[in-house]
Amino acid sequence: MPGAMAQAAKDKKAKAQSKAAPQGEEAAPVKPVTIAFDVMGSDHGPEEVIRGAAQLTLETPHIHALLVGDRAVIDGALANIRHNAERVAVQHAGQWVAMTDKPAAALDEKKEASITVAARLVAEGEAEALVSAGNTGAGVLACARHFKLLPNVRRAALATVYPTQLNHGAKEDPFSLILDVGATVDASADDLVAFAVMGSAYARIISKNPEPKVALLSNGTEAQKGPPRVVEANARLSKMRSLNFIGNVEGIDIPKGTADVVVCDGFVGNVCLKMLEGVSETVVELARYAYKEKLLWRAGLAMLSGGIERIKVATDWEQYGGAPILGFDRVFIKAHGRSKAKAIFNAGKVAAKAASNGLAESIQDTLPPR
Amino acid sequence: MPGAMAQAAKDKKAKAQSKAAPQGEEAAPVKPVTIAFDVMGSDHGPEEVIRGAAQLTLETPHIHALLVGDRAVIDGALANIRHNAERVAVQHAGQWVAMTDKPAAALDEKKEASITVAARLVAEGEAEALVSAGNTGAGVLACARHFKLLPNVRRAALATVYPTQLNHGAKEDPFSLILDVGATVDASADDLVAFAVMGSAYARIISKNPEPKVALLSNGTEAQKGPPRVVEANARLSKMRSLNFIGNVEGIDIPKGTADVVVCDGFVGNVCLKMLEGVSETVVELARYAYKEKLLWRAGLAMLSGGIERIKVATDWEQYGGAPILGFDRVFIKAHGRSKAKAIFNAGKVAAKAASNGLAESIQDTLPPR
Repeated sequence: MPGAMAQAAKDKKAKAQSKAAPQGEEAAPVKPVTIAFDVMGSDHGPEEVIRGAAQLTLETPHIHALLVGDRAVIDGALANIRHNAERVAVQHAGQWVAMTDKPAAALDEKKEASITVAARLVAEGEAEALVSAGNTGAGVLACARHFKLLPNVRRAALATVYPTQLNHGAKEDPFSLILDVGATVDASADDLVAFAVMGSAYARIISKNPEPKVALLSNGTEAQKGPPRVVEANARLSKMRSLNFIGNVEGIDIPKGTADVVVCDGFVGNVCLKMLEGVSETVVELARYAYKEKLLWRAGLAMLSGGIERIKVATDWEQYGGAPILGFDRVFIKAHGRSKAKAIFNAGKVAAKAASNGLAESIQDTLPPR
Repeated sequence: MPGAMAQAAKDKKAKAQSKAAPQGEEAAPVKPVTIAFDVMGSDHGPEEVIRGAAQLTLETPHIHALLVGDRAVIDGALANIRHNAERVAVQHAGQWVAMTDKPAAALDEKKEASITVAARLVAEGEAEALVSAGNTGAGVLACARHFKLLPNVRRAALATVYPTQLNHGAKEDPFSLILDVGATVDASADDLVAFAVMGSAYARIISKNPEPKVALLSNGTEAQKGPPRVVEANARLSKMRSLNFIGNVEGIDIPKGTADVVVCDGFVGNVCLKMLEGVSETVVELARYAYKEKLLWRAGLAMLSGGIERIKVATDWEQYGGAPILGFDRVFIKAHGRSKAKAIFNAGKVAAKAASNGLAESIQDTLPPR
């Protein structure tokens, strides 16, 4: 991308920031924000991504969509999808990473992959944030190659929201945030502290929760429980005044939702997240029993369908707008590979909110020096 | 304990073993086996433990119960509980460890705690296996102090069975085994390999599953996924002909039951196990919605109660007879603190089966030298 364009974008941003009204006085007009969408490589194809992005340009007053991918495909789709043409731009990328590709090899071979081009555009300031529903590993790696880790952050984290029994924050959201869920499998005490700060900042901004309850996942609530890295992280977090650290939580607290932000290494987090997917199976299992076993059960299940639908909605992650990758100077929201337009729409909204509210700066301000 | 008694018990055992018919010829008469029951410190008090042990002496042809605890309490209870007096013995222990006691401090202070006395009796050969529904940490520690770790085993593991969607083994049991769930929070590759061998031997003996599918828990099914200790354990297990190692499984495979034996470190295992406890909450949640929300849902739930009862039974761990502590030369089955007589009865049966079928020897024969 031409450096002049990037500089112009940065100047524009700086100007917009300097004009922002001081908080608490009166509501500032919503600042425009550009989201780069990697439209390639998701399970349902480019059209669903384009549809979600297009809807954002119609329904929000401030979001611009920069669509990155095969130009012919994008133009063809846009011809049939309502959108605000003044707020849609297209950047051609001739290659893309498939779900089954090995991330590092794919990025090495496909220099013009849509995720690479999109990450580069964001790094250069052409857009404020990145959204992709493609290969997760390739997305994380593209960020690592083109974004900068924040000072005092050694490793990035992939976070995700998940449904809980308890509600959270001012909006009474029925979900918590858990991180890392796979970016950093072997996290040190330093990394866990950074993840806690990152998760807290994200929950504060996205869930409108001024003091998110942050907890370390361990095998017991006592401060000395867990492997050395967890014990050390607990000791350090306990001393941080800038966080609402509530100590250790246990596995049962994950579905319960005891904490607003659950902190763990990427290995444990990934295992837990995938186990959570199994929870909704319980409902399916109930249905299976009912179907096979007894007419009475089938009738009962039919009458209960409203309640089951309610649980399904609560466990439908797609509505929550994807998983943020935290620790970089730029925002990246990874939408689920199976995302339909509505999920992309939500991911774009979350990305805009994170970028507009200075997520990276907020993390930076709270992180202890290494 | 008097050494002569211990020696007599050993001689008796050796004699019984030499008389056993060669396998496959004709069914050998069931050999008598003595189980030491720590009757103190469980949530429901000594009587439930005594009741379960007493029932074993009535319903099985071969199990002897050695009840360890306050003699006055035990004698008082036995006066009102049917039992086979020829197969019940009592050993007085004047102290006991409470659920809330710190294990190490409690064992140091209470030299005659029932769990210590019981473990000592088993170590000395007065009984073949130990069952306790008391403080788990104290139980593990008593074993560590009085039993010997098997050669080539560096750390013990606490295993537990849990309900799965798929069935397992010749008995089509709807549950898998997971270990370690808390004894060894920081497991090395060596430890994970040993846990795999231990879990496989246990499943083979207890679940009558001649070739249990053993898997490593990781953040991906590929052999190179996970932290270094898991990658290394995968490489070593892949080369072991004596195990049916199926590679890595992910979090979603835990509730599904892809493997018969899931191997992980005690930190991850503990978190997963406690998360599983939350699964049954989904059903409770359904009930809560139904109660609060709608008459129709309440009616539906009432009609479904048979199906829900079925799920409750499938998730009722107590019926599976407790958690074995593996890696020692003696058998210890830790029953849940909330165990009622039936759960103690099952734990005793499992302990007898493990001891009679040479669990420790079977582990020893399969373990690679360190």
